[in-house]
Amino acid sequence: MHEEVIEGIEGNSETKMELTYEREWDYELDRILEIIKKKEAKTVGLQFPEGLKRRGPKIVSDIKNGVRQDVVVAISGQPCYGACDIDTHLLKRSDIFIHFGHSPMKTSDKIIYVPLYSNVEVIPIMKLALEKLENSDVNPNIGLVTTTQHWNRFEEMKEFLEQEGYTVHTRRGDERLTYEGQVLGCNYASAEVDADQVMYVGGGKFHPLGLAMVHREKKVIIADPVNNLVSIADANKFIKQRYAAIHKAMNAKTWGIVYCTKIGQGRWELVEEIIKDNENAYVITLDEITPERLLNFKLDAFVNTGCPRISTDDGPRFKKPMLTPQEYWIATGRDPLESLSFDTFHGTW
Amino acid sequence: MHEEVIEGIEGNSETKMELTYEREWDYELDRILEIIKKKEAKTVGLQFPEGLKRRGPKIVSDIKNGVRQDVVVAISGQPCYGACDIDTHLLKRSDIFIHFGHSPMKTSDKIIYVPLYSNVEVIPIMKLALEKLENSDVNPNIGLVTTTQHWNRFEEMKEFLEQEGYTVHTRRGDERLTYEGQVLGCNYASAEVDADQVMYVGGGKFHPLGLAMVHREKKVIIADPVNNLVSIADANKFIKQRYAAIHKAMNAKTWGIVYCTKIGQGRWELVEEIIKDNENAYVITLDEITPERLLNFKLDAFVNTGCPRISTDDGPRFKKPMLTPQEYWIATGRDPLESLSFDTFHGTW
Repeated sequence: MHEEVIEGIEGNSETKMELTYEREWDYELDRILEIIKKKEAKTVGLQFPEGLKRRGPKIVSDIKNGVRQDVVVAISGQPCYGACDIDTHLLKRSDIFIHFGHSPMKTSDKIIYVPLYSNVEVIPIMKLALEKLENSDVNPNIGLVTTTQHWNRFEEMKEFLEQEGYTVHTRRGDERLTYEGQVLGCNYASAEVDADQVMYVGGGKFHPLGLAMVHREKKVIIADPVNNLVSIADANKFIKQRYAAIHKAMNAKTWGIVYCTKIGQGRWELVEEIIKDNENAYVITLDEITPERLLNFKLDAFVNTGCPRISTDDGPRFKKPMLTPQEYWIATGRDPLESLSFDTFHGTW
Repeated sequence: MHEEVIEGIEGNSETKMELTYEREWDYELDRILEIIKKKEAKTVGLQFPEGLKRRGPKIVSDIKNGVRQDVVVAISGQPCYGACDIDTHLLKRSDIFIHFGHSPMKTSDKIIYVPLYSNVEVIPIMKLALEKLENSDVNPNIGLVTTTQHWNRFEEMKEFLEQEGYTVHTRRGDERLTYEGQVLGCNYASAEVDADQVMYVGGGKFHPLGLAMVHREKKVIIADPVNNLVSIADANKFIKQRYAAIHKAMNAKTWGIVYCTKIGQGRWELVEEIIKDNENAYVITLDEITPERLLNFKLDAFVNTGCPRISTDDGPRFKKPMLTPQEYWIATGRDPLESLSFDTFHGTW
């Protein structure tokens, strides 16, 4: 199935389109102002993903111009990687907390989610991506997934593929996801559909590579309307790295079991399960899980119960093997090597 | 007063003693076990300063050997720079939280402080430090300060100086401090004594440099029993850097006002005071205040209302001026340049 694989998205210059789109966001100022007034909020907290932080000060000014003078608007400076990653310190201090760029993981009276849909056209790049698909005469079944950012055009994407003769299979996934066809870096339940090819429409390689790791039996076609690129997601590099990390960790005598304190990433029951039968396993709690923060613990290997992408994407940056819980059970002999699967998150908090 | 200044502590090889001390710590295992049993704690959180984190796993094992099998002991992996810097995420999850290496900033039923006194001898290096003091015949008055780590020998230090003919002036400082003669990186109230020379007995240059910045009229003699060094603290480099940062910030149009969410470093009222009259000042909340985390905010200058040592010691690492609140008032014209003083913290939380 992977014979047509193109390594890396950036390498696929043949199918790059020379288009540029104006990237403007509607950040729903009117809705925000209305909620602040209605709730008579005195302190408003704002949280942005890294790429949008630079827009923070302007949005603060816009909000301040629309509310009473004594309203304090504060921006979280903490790194933010998803709706799982709410700045609970600022949340506590805020009457209203506005989380930009992600869809709701859990509804809350205090937390307002502003998804920030992109206005980028998706059809031109999808047209180009058709050539990577099996022809609809041969294989009419296709899965379709996207990210929050482009979800506003999900129906358009679906109709396009249908017009091309495909039967488009979509589902919402589970309760961690908000929308039909939506994927997260840690959850690809929406791609569990009756099709062996799945088109991902969205920016970057982060999501489709996760998708290719979870659904290794499926061909994942990337139609990236942000960078105007088409390619096939190839997770082989990651899978090889996982096997290497597991093998290295098989010699470990002492283990650090990392519990992530981020609100949507805590899996305490997994930590307890691991330490119960391993007297050389030490629990370490962290919010940001970085190589530097683990350096001082002189342990042979680590298990990361937080965001799985820290193991898969950042794994090689750690000085010691950084396994997922599933990989730990393989490295310590409970589970067979063949049982290796990508770690995914379900539920909210 | 500063004519005898020696630049940098490490440079002073003449007065380095070739002694080595065994560095063993009594971390009060019996007291810890007793409290866990008495409180019937199910989850115990441990927090260490960076330099002691490597000892964490061994201490976990020692504790687990002395308590019921179902007690979970977790180590905080967060950076920790003082008693102001409690890992509140782990605290919340713990029945008993043990903070190692610092003295209590605030008493609490749940937080146990284990100060970890050093067994290093202090008299040999103090003897050597005498030559940097004014003779007791000429100037008998001397202040004496130390850190928590060496406070167990404070009486011994005091008696030694008295035997040498000095009148030793000491005080507790304020409520942020636990002990007579104790200094913190952000609080030197214990050196507000009637003496124009102060001896600091302790490791490193972090504390005495802060002391020299706060009490610029005093000569600060360092007797470092850990590195076996004697020198005079010279804060001139820092003071020059502060003036340079202020001057650079005088051109700033937009400001980021950083509020630190660490439990003992929050000064919200200072933030509010600053933003009240500056519509181009944006509040940013952070736990760890690092250059990387501020890069995405395209602002001209920052004010740090958290730990003052981030401005003084790490200031040059930031791409934009990182002022203390006092320095902000100078840069924006409310206060005169001559009013520059070192930012200090008082009170607890």
